[in-house]
Amino acid sequence: MTKIVVIGGVAGGMSAAARARRLDENASIIVLDKGPYVSFANCGLPYHVSGEIPSRDSLLLHTPDTLKAQLNLDVRVNSEVTRIDREDKTITVNGPEGTYSLAYDTLIYSPGSKAATPPVTGLDHASVHWLRTVPEMDGLIARIEGRSEFDAVVVGAGFIGLEAVEALAHRGGNVTLVEFAPHVLPPLDAEQAEWVDRELRKYGVRVLTCTSVDAISDADGAARVRLSSGEELTADLVVMSTGVTPDTALAKDAGLELGPRDAIVIDGYLRTSDPHIFAMGDAAAMRQEIGDGDVIAPVPLAAPANRHGRRAADAALLGIGAASDRVADSHKAPRVLGTAIVRVFGLTAAMTGANRRTLNTQGVDHVTVHVHPADHAGYFPGAQQMHITAHFAKETGELLGAQIVGGAGVANRINVFATALKAKMTANDLADLDLAYAPPFGSAKDPVNMTAFVAQNILFGQMPVWYAEDLEKVAREALVLDVRSAAECDNGMIPGALNIPHTEVRDRIEEIREAANGRWIAVHCASGVRSYLATRILVGNGLDARNLSGGALTLGGVDPDWAGS
Amino acid sequence: MTKIVVIGGVAGGMSAAARARRLDENASIIVLDKGPYVSFANCGLPYHVSGEIPSRDSLLLHTPDTLKAQLNLDVRVNSEVTRIDREDKTITVNGPEGTYSLAYDTLIYSPGSKAATPPVTGLDHASVHWLRTVPEMDGLIARIEGRSEFDAVVVGAGFIGLEAVEALAHRGGNVTLVEFAPHVLPPLDAEQAEWVDRELRKYGVRVLTCTSVDAISDADGAARVRLSSGEELTADLVVMSTGVTPDTALAKDAGLELGPRDAIVIDGYLRTSDPHIFAMGDAAAMRQEIGDGDVIAPVPLAAPANRHGRRAADAALLGIGAASDRVADSHKAPRVLGTAIVRVFGLTAAMTGANRRTLNTQGVDHVTVHVHPADHAGYFPGAQQMHITAHFAKETGELLGAQIVGGAGVANRINVFATALKAKMTANDLADLDLAYAPPFGSAKDPVNMTAFVAQNILFGQMPVWYAEDLEKVAREALVLDVRSAAECDNGMIPGALNIPHTEVRDRIEEIREAANGRWIAVHCASGVRSYLATRILVGNGLDARNLSGGALTLGGVDPDWAGS
Repeated sequence: MTKIVVIGGVAGGMSAAARARRLDENASIIVLDKGPYVSFANCGLPYHVSGEIPSRDSLLLHTPDTLKAQLNLDVRVNSEVTRIDREDKTITVNGPEGTYSLAYDTLIYSPGSKAATPPVTGLDHASVHWLRTVPEMDGLIARIEGRSEFDAVVVGAGFIGLEAVEALAHRGGNVTLVEFAPHVLPPLDAEQAEWVDRELRKYGVRVLTCTSVDAISDADGAARVRLSSGEELTADLVVMSTGVTPDTALAKDAGLELGPRDAIVIDGYLRTSDPHIFAMGDAAAMRQEIGDGDVIAPVPLAAPANRHGRRAADAALLGIGAASDRVADSHKAPRVLGTAIVRVFGLTAAMTGANRRTLNTQGVDHVTVHVHPADHAGYFPGAQQMHITAHFAKETGELLGAQIVGGAGVANRINVFATALKAKMTANDLADLDLAYAPPFGSAKDPVNMTAFVAQNILFGQMPVWYAEDLEKVAREALVLDVRSAAECDNGMIPGALNIPHTEVRDRIEEIREAANGRWIAVHCASGVRSYLATRILVGNGLDARNLSGGALTLGGVDPDWAGS
Repeated sequence: MTKIVVIGGVAGGMSAAARARRLDENASIIVLDKGPYVSFANCGLPYHVSGEIPSRDSLLLHTPDTLKAQLNLDVRVNSEVTRIDREDKTITVNGPEGTYSLAYDTLIYSPGSKAATPPVTGLDHASVHWLRTVPEMDGLIARIEGRSEFDAVVVGAGFIGLEAVEALAHRGGNVTLVEFAPHVLPPLDAEQAEWVDRELRKYGVRVLTCTSVDAISDADGAARVRLSSGEELTADLVVMSTGVTPDTALAKDAGLELGPRDAIVIDGYLRTSDPHIFAMGDAAAMRQEIGDGDVIAPVPLAAPANRHGRRAADAALLGIGAASDRVADSHKAPRVLGTAIVRVFGLTAAMTGANRRTLNTQGVDHVTVHVHPADHAGYFPGAQQMHITAHFAKETGELLGAQIVGGAGVANRINVFATALKAKMTANDLADLDLAYAPPFGSAKDPVNMTAFVAQNILFGQMPVWYAEDLEKVAREALVLDVRSAAECDNGMIPGALNIPHTEVRDRIEEIREAANGRWIAVHCASGVRSYLATRILVGNGLDARNLSGGALTLGGVDPDWAGS
């Protein structure tokens, strides 16, 4: 009888345990968790704080009893593992009934992460909360229970931070969001984060970027929060969401190979440096079998953890090289793209693959595309605009990463980009994607096709571009040609720009040539479409014209006070 | 100056014309259309009939004037081309101002299709309408204008037929839908079409399958419709939507190579057998450069036509082998998957790639997967179930086709499948797809991942299956084991089945072994999940057990009167 011990009873660990039982009816499978709950919906916690998920019980997907009945698992809560003895293949457990040791043939190690703790004094104040476990959620709700109005400070504008902001605002909180980075949702590129920032402000959230918390002290039971700017805030509640760090002290003691951030290094089969121990989730960093074998940093997201739990059980029980591997090399090298999505009030923000910062750090030569298509045919009621930023390799046209902020249809298109990334598709491939179209659901040229068309235009020279981040330099050296209508320009123009509506460009070429007076022409409109037509006309007339990628809608991300419609 | 003549001013033709202008500011570009409108939203017509798109003008995306102003196109409506002279590279046009000839360097030929006319007498009756052009839509609306109640017969349950049914029902029509095939939406597999059929009936539509119309005659101004069943219906309105056929008489006269259904044969660059003539859309059939070079039948859908129009202009003006081709072979062989989606009242039905009929006809050895996941995490409010049928190649695990019927999230997942098909992904690849997850948008194991997990289980032997279509045979030769709860079984069971809830299977193995008495065990539950667990327990105990793919929810498609919850 195979003895399988699983450390960690959420996401990866529980997926592995359930799959192991389905593969081996006779194995002994013991699941240990140091907390009081297993298999709880950790991604649902903020939505119970808000009240959107009314029942606390619905977050508790399973209990040790239901897991016993359905899957014959021996689940032990409040049981902390204090030692892994790899030589003897035993672990030491500190549980409700004392300390004991357990032998394993296979150890599935999914300990997760712990909250990263910034150097802030006063984090032990009663107003300071985290939102990663059911007891932490309970404590946070207890703090605001019965208050119809309260002041809250959320520290950290990542996924959980934004979900906490939304939840607290729904409950009546006046929320201040403090973020150390230059913009909210740091994994997004700046021009995309700008949309999220505006949405937060629209709903009354005070957003402080480039700011950290220095100290928290008591103010008659409330918290006095001192910021790096010197400002002091008083808050009934402080939520810390400043990221996570792998919880791997046990692995370190056991001598398992560790990588970036002390995460456990695993291969494509989720094997650690010990062939009898598999790891996954927030605590693990995968050695990529694609490319140069680099170890990537841990990706603390629920979906890969769940998938990897299942895979680890397959590898452990079916063996490496088993039938399930016969098909494809790709199966050996899952590519974690960090695909993620978050709802922020009426907006949805999503991302997959590399962002600009990563590409620049790695020195990857790329072009960037900005488009603002509607989620479905404009003539069908209810179309909503989305903002897409996508990066493509300059030499090969391969998609490198994409981000979308918008309303309806964002999840749809980010999933298409994520699938395309896994398949290493190029702009040409994306241009040919045969996606579902009927007026309520899409456009004959889907937003993903449109992104690819623009990428082709840039990559193959049909559309020379300039980027919003270079506005200052461009305004100095080029003639800025604004091809929006005169009415649109009434709301503001780039200083020094010449306005000629795009339908008049053909007839006024000489006027433009004279105004340019040898300078290149920096064309723009609101979204980049009309200015693309104008750029083609100018280029066709022998002028050096370039189009502002994404138009004024993207420029708004650079200078929020100046944004076209 | 390059002379480009475009025949057909919608979808493919207009996409080609617009792209041609953007590529060549100086070309002469003339667009001819035999109808009064160009660039109209043909996919939107049913939604103006229903009133959901209130403004008729919003369907007319462009006029010759706006196309002149924006793109300097010379658009001539009510202008029919009567002859293509390939030797002289001229065409003969019959327009409002008489007959004349035009020379071309490149001819873009996008004539579209005409309605397929079944052998029905009386199609000239005033009550008989089509819904493919703006004038046809106007005529149809005029027929029902002012009536708050009316009887309608829709002939043909394809995409436009279903959209017409929905529109007429919205307008107060009592609708009978007549379909020659054994089920509505014939491109779907039967078990998926069943959901659409139920939805139609739920909204009061009378659905007659395996039925055709023999004759239409007059009944005091209304139509008397005689069906193949002998039944006669009286209707104020008959809508014909029995498919389309390529409109290629002109191409035939000109001696262009024709393929299936007399469609114009084109290559991956949209070139016809004449290097100066490009074709696309409903009238064209592409020679696949993947595989054995077969010519596929025409795919009369708007999205490929639009994309191919752009591609044809690229090929004509940038040349074959230009910069835009340098990246990928895939660019040479767009793979039209027939991805399609349709809204039917509260349901959405979508498909991509091959269905069971095609696979069986082509003799492709495959396995089929049925799953019924929710569009997002079940603990988050508003989750809606979707029904997925997917086919995978038995030997390689490659995805061959997928269909989804459900509510929210259908477009999202069909697009992922379509992207995966283009990339020739396998079940293993799909299992590793890194898709967007947060509770409002998905699940940690996305519906696409779940489909792949089940495919892996079938392909690699963890889950032997039986299929609903074999029910009769299975009930004769196997012990049917129903592992739903006793309460669920109160609403009906397969005759002769043994009910043992899945959580009791482990303890009652011997009872099951005795009942089977040497027969194999045909396990099932409602959706296939609990019975999968039970199957694994039985197999783990040495019994020959197989799981009903998709559970009773799929069985319902075989026998609608017997369906589990």
